[in-house]
Amino acid sequence: MPSKKKHDFNTTITTLGPAKIATPLRYPRYVDETKPLELIMTSEELAELDNDTLMLEFEKAGPREKLYFDPSKTKCAIVTCGGLCPGINDVIRAIVMESHYHYGIRTVLGIRNGLRGFIPKYGYDVRELNPHNVSSIHQFGGTVLGSSRGPQEPSEIVDSLERMNVNILFVIGGDGTMRAAKAIVNEVAARGRKIAVIGIPKTIDNDINFITRTFGFDTAVEKATEAIQCAHVEATGMDMGVGLVKLMGREAGFIAAQATLAMQEVNFLLVPEQEFELDGDNGLLMALERRLLARGHALIVCAEGAGKNLLESGTTKDPSGNVTLGDICGLLSRRMKEHFKERQLEMTMKFIDPSYIIRSVPANAGDRVYCGFLGQHAVHAAMAGKTGVVVTQVKSSMALLPLELVTSRRRCLNVHSDYWSSVMEATGQQN
Amino acid sequence: MPSKKKHDFNTTITTLGPAKIATPLRYPRYVDETKPLELIMTSEELAELDNDTLMLEFEKAGPREKLYFDPSKTKCAIVTCGGLCPGINDVIRAIVMESHYHYGIRTVLGIRNGLRGFIPKYGYDVRELNPHNVSSIHQFGGTVLGSSRGPQEPSEIVDSLERMNVNILFVIGGDGTMRAAKAIVNEVAARGRKIAVIGIPKTIDNDINFITRTFGFDTAVEKATEAIQCAHVEATGMDMGVGLVKLMGREAGFIAAQATLAMQEVNFLLVPEQEFELDGDNGLLMALERRLLARGHALIVCAEGAGKNLLESGTTKDPSGNVTLGDICGLLSRRMKEHFKERQLEMTMKFIDPSYIIRSVPANAGDRVYCGFLGQHAVHAAMAGKTGVVVTQVKSSMALLPLELVTSRRRCLNVHSDYWSSVMEATGQQN
Amino acid sequence: MPSKKKHDFNTTITTLGPAKIATPLRYPRYVDETKPLELIMTSEELAELDNDTLMLEFEKAGPREKLYFDPSKTKCAIVTCGGLCPGINDVIRAIVMESHYHYGIRTVLGIRNGLRGFIPKYGYDVRELNPHNVSSIHQFGGTVLGSSRGPQEPSEIVDSLERMNVNILFVIGGDGTMRAAKAIVNEVAARGRKIAVIGIPKTIDNDINFITRTFGFDTAVEKATEAIQCAHVEATGMDMGVGLVKLMGREAGFIAAQATLAMQEVNFLLVPEQEFELDGDNGLLMALERRLLARGHALIVCAEGAGKNLLESGTTKDPSGNVTLGDICGLLSRRMKEHFKERQLEMTMKFIDPSYIIRSVPANAGDRVYCGFLGQHAVHAAMAGKTGVVVTQVKSSMALLPLELVTSRRRCLNVHSDYWSSVMEATGQQN
Amino acid sequence: MPSKKKHDFNTTITTLGPAKIATPLRYPRYVDETKPLELIMTSEELAELDNDTLMLEFEKAGPREKLYFDPSKTKCAIVTCGGLCPGINDVIRAIVMESHYHYGIRTVLGIRNGLRGFIPKYGYDVRELNPHNVSSIHQFGGTVLGSSRGPQEPSEIVDSLERMNVNILFVIGGDGTMRAAKAIVNEVAARGRKIAVIGIPKTIDNDINFITRTFGFDTAVEKATEAIQCAHVEATGMDMGVGLVKLMGREAGFIAAQATLAMQEVNFLLVPEQEFELDGDNGLLMALERRLLARGHALIVCAEGAGKNLLESGTTKDPSGNVTLGDICGLLSRRMKEHFKERQLEMTMKFIDPSYIIRSVPANAGDRVYCGFLGQHAVHAAMAGKTGVVVTQVKSSMALLPLELVTSRRRCLNVHSDYWSSVMEATGQQN
Repeated sequence: MPSKKKHDFNTTITTLGPAKIATPLRYPRYVDETKPLELIMTSEELAELDNDTLMLEFEKAGPREKLYFDPSKTKCAIVTCGGLCPGINDVIRAIVMESHYHYGIRTVLGIRNGLRGFIPKYGYDVRELNPHNVSSIHQFGGTVLGSSRGPQEPSEIVDSLERMNVNILFVIGGDGTMRAAKAIVNEVAARGRKIAVIGIPKTIDNDINFITRTFGFDTAVEKATEAIQCAHVEATGMDMGVGLVKLMGREAGFIAAQATLAMQEVNFLLVPEQEFELDGDNGLLMALERRLLARGHALIVCAEGAGKNLLESGTTKDPSGNVTLGDICGLLSRRMKEHFKERQLEMTMKFIDPSYIIRSVPANAGDRVYCGFLGQHAVHAAMAGKTGVVVTQVKSSMALLPLELVTSRRRCLNVHSDYWSSVMEATGQQN
Repeated sequence: MPSKKKHDFNTTITTLGPAKIATPLRYPRYVDETKPLELIMTSEELAELDNDTLMLEFEKAGPREKLYFDPSKTKCAIVTCGGLCPGINDVIRAIVMESHYHYGIRTVLGIRNGLRGFIPKYGYDVRELNPHNVSSIHQFGGTVLGSSRGPQEPSEIVDSLERMNVNILFVIGGDGTMRAAKAIVNEVAARGRKIAVIGIPKTIDNDINFITRTFGFDTAVEKATEAIQCAHVEATGMDMGVGLVKLMGREAGFIAAQATLAMQEVNFLLVPEQEFELDGDNGLLMALERRLLARGHALIVCAEGAGKNLLESGTTKDPSGNVTLGDICGLLSRRMKEHFKERQLEMTMKFIDPSYIIRSVPANAGDRVYCGFLGQHAVHAAMAGKTGVVVTQVKSSMALLPLELVTSRRRCLNVHSDYWSSVMEATGQQN
Repeated sequence: MPSKKKHDFNTTITTLGPAKIATPLRYPRYVDETKPLELIMTSEELAELDNDTLMLEFEKAGPREKLYFDPSKTKCAIVTCGGLCPGINDVIRAIVMESHYHYGIRTVLGIRNGLRGFIPKYGYDVRELNPHNVSSIHQFGGTVLGSSRGPQEPSEIVDSLERMNVNILFVIGGDGTMRAAKAIVNEVAARGRKIAVIGIPKTIDNDINFITRTFGFDTAVEKATEAIQCAHVEATGMDMGVGLVKLMGREAGFIAAQATLAMQEVNFLLVPEQEFELDGDNGLLMALERRLLARGHALIVCAEGAGKNLLESGTTKDPSGNVTLGDICGLLSRRMKEHFKERQLEMTMKFIDPSYIIRSVPANAGDRVYCGFLGQHAVHAAMAGKTGVVVTQVKSSMALLPLELVTSRRRCLNVHSDYWSSVMEATGQQN
Repeated sequence: MPSKKKHDFNTTITTLGPAKIATPLRYPRYVDETKPLELIMTSEELAELDNDTLMLEFEKAGPREKLYFDPSKTKCAIVTCGGLCPGINDVIRAIVMESHYHYGIRTVLGIRNGLRGFIPKYGYDVRELNPHNVSSIHQFGGTVLGSSRGPQEPSEIVDSLERMNVNILFVIGGDGTMRAAKAIVNEVAARGRKIAVIGIPKTIDNDINFITRTFGFDTAVEKATEAIQCAHVEATGMDMGVGLVKLMGREAGFIAAQATLAMQEVNFLLVPEQEFELDGDNGLLMALERRLLARGHALIVCAEGAGKNLLESGTTKDPSGNVTLGDICGLLSRRMKEHFKERQLEMTMKFIDPSYIIRSVPANAGDRVYCGFLGQHAVHAAMAGKTGVVVTQVKSSMALLPLELVTSRRRCLNVHSDYWSSVMEATGQQN
C-alpha cells in the first residue's frame, strides 16, 4: 500500500488566528480538523510524479464550528481576473448567497474589471453585491464584474483593501492570478493585517496541478463537441472532405482530448503534449491521405498549442505574460493544400474555430453544482480565518490547498496514461 | 388597388404533357389550376421593383387530381449541390416518404456528391433511398448524399438520367444549381424526353428573388444569435471590450440583419448592401470610439461581403464561380487596433467567426415543417408532369415558379424599407 | 380576381385626434395612410369564410410622420395578462426600448400582476421600466411584470390610469384580455379622455381570428417536438410500446398539428377540430392495435381539447372563464389498457405531458424578431394616436386591426385545407 | 489513517481461466493485476458504513497484456434491460467499436427487447451489430436494441447463449438486471461453460451501492433543471404562485437533490430519505404559507418516492417487481389547495412532471465520455476472461467489482452528510 512515502509537498493551511466565534450556520456538520482528508495520488494525477503513488493529506473544505471573523462585522470583496470561463457568475452568486443568507454578512463588494479595480488611476467604481442583484446572474456567461489581464502592484491592492475595510478577499482567476493572490497574502502579512485571501482557481484548460477539475471545463467540452459535430457534418458532406477544428489549449490538450472522447468521430487529435511531424511516411499528411483515400473524409481536432516543434518559437507576449502562439492551424491548412495539390488529389478543407463560443456560455448543470460548492466552501474557509488557500475538488473530495501548491507547476496530459490510451483508441491514430 | 399593371414576369409553368392518370392520394384536396394564386408584391419583396406594387399570378403548389406519371412505373432521383444548409436531409426525407407512402413509387435514387454523381469519370455509386434508410436523417445536419460545387456537362447528366431510366429529377441547390437545372431541362427538351426536373432552392443567405423564405434560414439565424450572444458576453466582460462577429452573407446581409433584430444588442451592423467608411468623423472607427468611451463596450456584426468598397476587388474565384471575397474582418481588426493605439486608448477585441457552425446543424422545428412542405409539393408537382419549376413559399403561400424567374437576379436587403429601418433602430447606428 | 367583394368586416382604425406633432425618429420611412395594405384572404385564413376569397384592406403598421402625443409629455404603461407564452418579456423590452431611445419618452410604467395591478385593493406597487432594468429580460421566459387571470372593472382601471396620468396603455394578453381592452377603450371614450389603448394579442394556441401568427407559437412548437421525440424514443424502446403526448390546445390544435409536421413520426394526431371514436373497426383502439401489430410501436399526440364528444361536458370554469376540460388523456390511457388486456395483447404506454415546459421557456430567435416588431409597431401606433387596435402580422405584413375584429370569433384548424391534408399525410392516419 | 480495518466486503474478481493469448491492442498500457486500486471510502460513500472510514482494494479496469479469449474466435452479445437512461446507445456503440476495431472481433450480436430476446417463445430476431450500423446511434436517446422489464429463466438464457455460441455477454441494466446477470453466471458455471458475463450498471437514480456515478445521471440532472426553471418562471409569473416539480427517485433523491443544487432556486426539496409532515406549525403547508406571504412565490421539487409516511403503503408491483408508489404530488396538490382555501389565501399552483423527458434524451458530453470508458473497459475485462463483474467508476477511478457487491444493498442520500448540508443550505428549508 502507498504508505507515508516521503515527499516535500506542503499541504498545511495557514490561519489568521484562533477561531473563537460560534458559527451562525443552521445545518452544522462541522469539519473535524484533526482528521485530514487522505488521498492516494498517482503519476497520472500529479505533474511531478513519475511512477510513484503517494498518500497525501489535505485539509478538508467545509464549515467550521468556530469562526475567526465575526459575521456582523465582516466585509467581503470579490474580484474576477483573466479570460472568461463558464461558471464565474455562479461562483460569485454562491459567495454572495452563502455570505448573506447563511453567515449574515452585510457587505459583499464586487471589484470591477479584475485587479485593476483596486488601482485608483483606473477610476472604476465598486459594486455592492446582494442576493437581489446576483439572483439571476448564473443564467449568463462571462462575469458581471468584468475582468482584466495582468498583475497590479500588491501594495496598491492592499492599500485599497484597507481603505475599504475589507476583511475577506475572494480571488477568482487562473494561475497568474493565484500568484498575484499569494503576493497579496504576503503583503497583508508584512503589514500585520488580518485579511483572509481565498483563491478559486479558474482555467478552462483544466491544467492546474493537484486540481482534479476546474469549473467550466465540462461546459467547454460540451460546446466543443458541437463544433466538432459540425466539422464532421461538413467533412462527410463531400468527397475527400476534411474538417479541421481548433480548440483551446495552450499548454495542455485536456479540452481537445475530452471532446474527442465525447464525439468518437475524430481521426487525428493534435495536442501540445505530443509532438508530431507533417512530412514523411509517418507524418500527418500521408496519414491523412491514406485515411481520405480509404474513407473519403477525415476529422482533425487541434489544440491551439499543438505542433510547437513545427513553428518558429514566438517571442511576443500578451498582457498576462503568455507567449503568443504560432498559428498551427494556418500552417496545417497551407501544408495540407500543398500536399494534395502536389499529389494531384482533390481535398476540400472546412476549418472551424469556435474560439470564445466555448468559454462565454453559461455553465451546464454539472458545473453549476460544482461552482455552488466552490462558493460555499470559499466562504466557510474564509470565515474560519484560513488564508492563502484555494478551494477545489481533489479527486472526489472538496479540499483546501495552499496557494503555492497549485501555482508551482502546470499539469498536462500524461501521454503514458490509461486516459491517453483511451483517447488514442478513440481516434485510431498512430503516433 | 394594384390592378393588373403591366409587367414582363413570366410565371407560366411548363407541363410535360396532359395529365390523365388518377391520383392514388388518400387525402385529396386538389389544386384547381384555373384559379391561380394572386399575390400583391411590393418593392420590398422584389429586387426589380422601385416603388411599384404589382399583382402577380402564380401556379399554386399542391396535389393534382390527375397525374402525368404512372406511379407504379416512375423512378425518381435526388441530387444535392453546393454548400450545406440546415434542412437538406429533411427535404430528401420528405421526397422519399411522399413518393413511397403516398404515391406508391418504388424507386428513389440518391445521386452522390452533387452533379458529379452523374458523371462516370468520378465513379460514384448511386444509393437507393427508402423510408427505412431515411427515417432518421432529419436529425442530422448536412446532406446524406454528399454534395459538390460547380457545374457539369448537361448532356452527360441527361445521358446518365437516361441510362438509369429516371423520370423525375429533384435538384436541391443554390442559384448556380438552379441554372444547371434549367440547362438539364433544355437538354431533356431538345432530346424530346419526358423527364420532369423540379428545383428546391437552397441558400442560407435567403437571397433568391421572388422567394420569401429559403429553408434553413431560421435555423442559421438561431445559431448566429448564439455567436453574437457570446461576443456580447466577451465585450462586456472587460473595459473597452469590442466583440466582432463575422456572419455569412456574400451579397446579401439577411442573416446578419435578422440575427441583429433577434439579439437587440448589436451596435454596428455591416452588410454588403450598405457601403461604409472607416475614417473620418462619420466613419466606423470614430463612431466606435465614441460608443466605447460612452458605454465601455461595443458589439459589431459583419456580413462576410460587407465593405467591398474598402477592399481591393478580388479576381480569384471558387469552383462554383463565386468571386473570392476580401477579408473585411481582418481589415477591421487591423484598423481598429491601429486607431486605438494612435488615440492612446485601450481597446480589447474578441473576434468570433462561427462559420460552418451555423449551417451544418440540424434544422429547427420551423424549418422542418417548411422542408416537409417543400418535399411534399415537389413530388406533387413532378407527378403532375410539371418541369423546369421550383417549389417555394411566396409570401405566405406555397407556389410553383419557373426556374428562370428565380435565377435572373438575386435579392438583397432593401435599405429603404421598413425592415431596414427596424434594423437601424435596433442598432442605433447612423449611416 | 378577388375584386372588392362585399363583406362586413370593419377594418377602420380609430384615432384619438389629429396628428400634428413632428416625429423625433431618426430613420423615418413613414407610413402613407392613404395607401392601405391590400391582402387577399381565403377560407383557410379566416374563420368566417367558407369558400370565398376576399380582398381586404388594413391599416399598415409603422411609424407616422406626425404624432398625436408629444413624446416629452407622454407617460406609458404596460400590463401583461393571462397564461404565460414565450416572448412576453421581449415585447415588454421592445416597447421600453422604442419609447425611450427612439421617441424619447421618459416614463414607462410596468403594472404588476395583470389587470389586478390597477385595482387598489390588491395593493400592488407599480414598477418603473427603463432600458437598464429591461435590457436582459428577454433571456428569461415568463413575464417580469407578473400576470393574473380574469377581468377587472373597467371604471376602476381607467380611474387608475387617470390617477397615474397614463397616456398610453399597452395590453398584452389573450382574447379575454382583448375584450377587456375594448371595455377600457369604451370607458375612456365615455369619459372623453385621450388615452390610447393598444393590444398585443398573446395566445400560445395561435387561434386568434385574422392573426396569422401569434408570438411564442414557434417556440412552443419547438419545445413540443422535444417532448414528442422523447415519447418516440420511449415507444420504440420496447416491443408494443405506445408514446402518448398531451399538448396544449383547448379549442384549436395548431401546436399539436405543427409539431406533428415538424417531427414526422406521429401516427395518430387528435385535435379538438376533428371528432374521433375509440370503438369500432374504424375507432382509434383498433387502428392502434393494427399499427402495433404491424410495426411494434406507435406515437399518439393529443391536444388537451380533443375528444370532447367522448367526455362528459364539463360545467366548471377557471377564473378566466374557460370551461374546465375533461381529461382526454386519462380516458385514452384507461381505454387503451382495457382494450389490449381484453385482446390479450401486451401494450406498454408511456405518457408525457410537457405542460408548462413549452410555454415558460425564453423565445427562440424567430419569435424574438417578431416580438421586437410587435413592440416597435405598438409604440408607433400609440404615438400616432391610434386606439382600440391590435398590432399584428397578417399574412406576411404588419398591420393594425380594430380590437373587435380579432375578438369576435376564434380561429381553428380548417380540416378541409391543404395544411390539414399535409398533416394527415404526415401521420398516415385515416379519419 | 484508515489502516486495513477489517471488513467483509469481497472485492475479488473471478476469471474463467488463465490468460495466455497476446493482446492485439496497439496502444498498450497494461493493468498490473498485482497492484490493486486502493481507495479510502467513507460513510458518505457506502450505504453500509456508519462513521467508519475504510481502505478498500479493487481490481483495476483496463487492458490486460494477456487475454483469455482468442479474438478471432470470439462472439459477443449485448442485451439492454429495464427503463431507459441517457447513454445506453453510447455504451452499445463503445462495446461494438472496441470489439471490432481494437480486438478484431468479428461478431457482436444485439439481443432484442431485453432478456426476452433470449426466450424462444417471444420470437424476436437477433441483430448483428457492426461499426457501420452503430456509428450514429449515440446521437439518439433510448436503446436501439429495445428493452423489457422483469426476469427470465436463467437456464433458457444460457440455452440461448449456447445455441448462438456466444462467448461474452454484456448486460446493461439496473440492480434487478445485475441479479439476473449473477444468476446467468451461476448457471454458466454449473454447466462448466466458458462464457464471460459483464455487467454495466444502469440506473438513472444513481443509487447503486459502491458506484460513485451511473451513466446518464448528469444528463438527467441537466434536463431536470430545465423543468425546474420552467416551474420557477411559472411561480414567479403571478402573485402567490407555487411551482411543483415531480422528479424521478423511488428510493433515493439523488436527481432531485443534484438538480436543486444546480438551480439554487428551490425552496422545498422532498426526498424519500427524509420524512416530512404536512400539518402542524413545522409542517410543509405552514412553511409554504410563510414563504408565500413573505416572497409571493415558492418552488417545490418532489422526488416520486418522497412522503411515503403520508401515503397508504402500496401493495401492487410492476413487472420488474418494484412496488407501485402512491401519488405524493397528487396528495400535495390536494392538501395545498385545501390549506389555502381554508386560510382564505389565494394560491395558484403549476405542476410539472417532466417524467420520461429526462431519461429519453441523448447523453451530454460528460456522460458520453463516461459511457465510452464503460464500453471499452467492459471489453477489456471480458477479453481477459473476467466474469461476474461490473465495470464502473469508483470515486475517481475505473474498476471491476463483483456483481454481488453492488446488488446487495441500494445506496441513498446520506442526510447527515456535507452534501446534504449543502442541499439544505441551497433551499433554506428547515427539517
